[in-house]
Amino acid sequence: MVATATPKKPEAEKKAAPLYSLESHPSPSVVKVGEDVAFGGRQVTIIAGPCAVESREQTVETARHVRDAGMKVLRGGAYKPRTSPYSFQGLGREGLAILEAAKRETGLKIITEAMDVDEIARVAETADIVQLGSRNMQNFSLLKRAGQLRKPVLLKRGASATLDEFLLAAEYILSEGNPDVILCERGIRTFDNHSRNTLDLNIIPVLKEKTHLPVIVDPSHGTGRRGSVIPMARAAVAAGADGLIVEVHYDPASALCDGKQSLRPSDLRDLVRQCRGVAEAIGRTL
Amino acid sequence: MVATATPKKPEAEKKAAPLYSLESHPSPSVVKVGEDVAFGGRQVTIIAGPCAVESREQTVETARHVRDAGMKVLRGGAYKPRTSPYSFQGLGREGLAILEAAKRETGLKIITEAMDVDEIARVAETADIVQLGSRNMQNFSLLKRAGQLRKPVLLKRGASATLDEFLLAAEYILSEGNPDVILCERGIRTFDNHSRNTLDLNIIPVLKEKTHLPVIVDPSHGTGRRGSVIPMARAAVAAGADGLIVEVHYDPASALCDGKQSLRPSDLRDLVRQCRGVAEAIGRTL
Amino acid sequence: MVATATPKKPEAEKKAAPLYSLESHPSPSVVKVGEDVAFGGRQVTIIAGPCAVESREQTVETARHVRDAGMKVLRGGAYKPRTSPYSFQGLGREGLAILEAAKRETGLKIITEAMDVDEIARVAETADIVQLGSRNMQNFSLLKRAGQLRKPVLLKRGASATLDEFLLAAEYILSEGNPDVILCERGIRTFDNHSRNTLDLNIIPVLKEKTHLPVIVDPSHGTGRRGSVIPMARAAVAAGADGLIVEVHYDPASALCDGKQSLRPSDLRDLVRQCRGVAEAIGRTL
Amino acid sequence: MVATATPKKPEAEKKAAPLYSLESHPSPSVVKVGEDVAFGGRQVTIIAGPCAVESREQTVETARHVRDAGMKVLRGGAYKPRTSPYSFQGLGREGLAILEAAKRETGLKIITEAMDVDEIARVAETADIVQLGSRNMQNFSLLKRAGQLRKPVLLKRGASATLDEFLLAAEYILSEGNPDVILCERGIRTFDNHSRNTLDLNIIPVLKEKTHLPVIVDPSHGTGRRGSVIPMARAAVAAGADGLIVEVHYDPASALCDGKQSLRPSDLRDLVRQCRGVAEAIGRTL
Repeated sequence: MVATATPKKPEAEKKAAPLYSLESHPSPSVVKVGEDVAFGGRQVTIIAGPCAVESREQTVETARHVRDAGMKVLRGGAYKPRTSPYSFQGLGREGLAILEAAKRETGLKIITEAMDVDEIARVAETADIVQLGSRNMQNFSLLKRAGQLRKPVLLKRGASATLDEFLLAAEYILSEGNPDVILCERGIRTFDNHSRNTLDLNIIPVLKEKTHLPVIVDPSHGTGRRGSVIPMARAAVAAGADGLIVEVHYDPASALCDGKQSLRPSDLRDLVRQCRGVAEAIGRTL
Repeated sequence: MVATATPKKPEAEKKAAPLYSLESHPSPSVVKVGEDVAFGGRQVTIIAGPCAVESREQTVETARHVRDAGMKVLRGGAYKPRTSPYSFQGLGREGLAILEAAKRETGLKIITEAMDVDEIARVAETADIVQLGSRNMQNFSLLKRAGQLRKPVLLKRGASATLDEFLLAAEYILSEGNPDVILCERGIRTFDNHSRNTLDLNIIPVLKEKTHLPVIVDPSHGTGRRGSVIPMARAAVAAGADGLIVEVHYDPASALCDGKQSLRPSDLRDLVRQCRGVAEAIGRTL
Repeated sequence: MVATATPKKPEAEKKAAPLYSLESHPSPSVVKVGEDVAFGGRQVTIIAGPCAVESREQTVETARHVRDAGMKVLRGGAYKPRTSPYSFQGLGREGLAILEAAKRETGLKIITEAMDVDEIARVAETADIVQLGSRNMQNFSLLKRAGQLRKPVLLKRGASATLDEFLLAAEYILSEGNPDVILCERGIRTFDNHSRNTLDLNIIPVLKEKTHLPVIVDPSHGTGRRGSVIPMARAAVAAGADGLIVEVHYDPASALCDGKQSLRPSDLRDLVRQCRGVAEAIGRTL
Repeated sequence: MVATATPKKPEAEKKAAPLYSLESHPSPSVVKVGEDVAFGGRQVTIIAGPCAVESREQTVETARHVRDAGMKVLRGGAYKPRTSPYSFQGLGREGLAILEAAKRETGLKIITEAMDVDEIARVAETADIVQLGSRNMQNFSLLKRAGQLRKPVLLKRGASATLDEFLLAAEYILSEGNPDVILCERGIRTFDNHSRNTLDLNIIPVLKEKTHLPVIVDPSHGTGRRGSVIPMARAAVAAGADGLIVEVHYDPASALCDGKQSLRPSDLRDLVRQCRGVAEAIGRTL
């Protein structure tokens, strides 16, 4: 039962081109979510919603604003990774039920985060897109489980992940058989302290030279400042992002998390209008 | 079933002093591992062993060198977190069985990493100390599960974790009822490219002002260069570390991972001798 | 002659609002360069030219391309700060003479770098805008000397300068009496290795909340990759930059420095066209 | 007068081994300062003194403490590089005169910083060692001027300088004919915020493999916290540093700069005693 032979050097560090690469798949992938939502084509797609699902009222009300601004996908966390064990950890399964209610009410698609191998299957029942958060970008057990889902996965870049680490984390999902991976840049950790994170838009043109996977940007976490969200959303679209994920709350001052970076519903409409102009200027639609 | 009231602002961000703090526990904690091993007292304790368990021969042979150098704890990974899905991922349960064999042969205590909530209980059957790796420092599900063990936990700092994030990750374990947490500095990610990571010894005196938990240092991962391991091991002891965890391999050139930073058995004896001198110079034993 | 009294704590850390701040000057400053060039108004202004002045032919030929693309300011280094003492250090005064020739031939305004307190006055005779490079952002003697000029100064952000350090470096110039300072983001140093630097566009909206000074962006040094220059130039304009400074060379393959990031003349025309679209989408001209 | 031929690619990127390298000079250099002070041999040498020269009383009084602790070199800045133009900028030439007085009174050698090409010759009249600060590590004009002095130069590493940039900055000095360069690690800029800088002791063993130049460490600026200075001083010696430069002030609470990191005279005696023990444990003297 116990191995006695020394294994050879891994033939492992596989010779074939990785699945994420343009060698494997020379044209850009389009990740479809149902009939009418897609990431990776000519269309720039915006996801919006609250940081956390806090209550049925808050979620459904915010969802209506998201739908009315023309968006088709609602974000909202039922399971929240929090630095402190004493911070609000999300409503869990109750939160998933609230997201389902918001979906019934508005017709929006749902994206929500899975933090745990034991809960990811349950999350995938509710979610149209399963989000893996930046702290879990190298939670390899979770990546493998996400690779076994038949749902699109949004993979957020870790706060200190290199380009290669990011793409190889995606490869964990792809190599398990799930081709529908959307990459998301959400800010890296640097010496810079004027913003919560340093949104690394520079990675977009480099990713576009290396991978066929769609790339979206989170300017809310990426800057942590409400006043920076719209300018950096415009910049992300201009740099070539295939979409955005932004935080919006019907009442940011009362938000249980990330209120400082949440847009108000009227801000969301401004963001859409301004980003649409930029998208059209570079030959895309929004 | 669905919440309808907005939850209040979390009374959460708990007012009481955190469990890691010197306010909660004013004297240094000593984490005992069996009768004769401890972290946090006057003694400086060194853990050594291969990066990965590769075979019974490699592990047992290396373990004998570790024991002969006077060490009491063997490290070795059965589950290996690897950046690429195509790299050697560890022998898994077979690796745990090999570690048990090494323990029977040498009497050494065992430390090995748990990567997965589904396997942590099995890992804890073999391990005298359960290691949580730097990529999982904010895998909160895993931290909580580790908090429910009745085994000491070694928590490695994430590559871009701040002091507060590191201590609050420990708090996740402590707050579930496990008081036996050992902190481990293992290098942070910076612009610096002369070494694989930047070993942040500066955190040691700061941690000693904030927490009663023992702090050890990993100069092997922290530098990624064999030639730096001994000087930085000495420096860690001089800075006040309660212990070290170092990689040693009976034949580094054939190692399946991290061969470039592994000490040879003779290097380990030099390290012990030199660090003992430094420890005694500052009033400690080794 | 020798002081014997201990000076009091500096009343120094001056109470009045700094000169760079919107408290001191509530509307955006427009820095004029001659009659027809300005930074800080509705117009987005692009500076282009070679990294270094290498020869009369190279400079004048490139200048013609710059003028033909519609630009009004030529960049080009006569004094080059180089990491190694054995690298090409620039043509010095001969380079300044070549820039003057290019100006006569094309009518373009000239921006060129001063590295040295002894040469800055000479540089300012040739330059319409004097550039201070990122390595000299905290060369306080040079900043003071630049503050005594009657020429606009372009101040590049240091590779690890915080927002406050950047603004206080500008304050050194302003406080000597020169109000015409243009700030330039040119990439910061982070762990990220996919590009030569991490272009920190996030600083633009923050700067716009703190200072009246115009802000431009250098996507050539900021990324170090030709393929990234146009996308990041578009992104900079979208984020609110008042201008760009880009490297263009009539034959990048033969460039003595920074060939890998230099645009070809045809690329420059693409950049202008694409950035103009983005500028107009957000209500500016170019 | 104007060049018309395109210069060839610089044969520049010189083929010969750089002067800093062990290829050029295989045994460690010993930089002598007068008869009885040296950096780079078996002896570990400590420099101590106030951040800034504030007054004759403060400097001479602190110098006496430095001498009484057994040290032979006094540090103290007459010219202070300060982030804000409104902060105390040093006493300038009056400060140099005070340092000369302290030298007459105590017999200590003097190290003080030159910030400016126009003043470096005057500084070198007073200084036994001329210091170039981290903000000027790539002030190439100043480096060249320092290379023309016949005085030892202490070169501090820039806050975001790589190993290669640091060594090539030294090469600027060496290549002008001054062989007496002492390198000084003083903390780098990272995301880490528990200390003012991240003291990068890891660079010491790497430098020792690449250069014959002596290497010292500044734990005062490198950490910015009084409580960290002694542990990190011990660690620096243990890691192989050839010396230390520390801030001490006879009354830190009244210091015009850096009071939070200045040792008291009694702390300096503790530091010397503890570092001596560590030095002897690794076969050196102090």
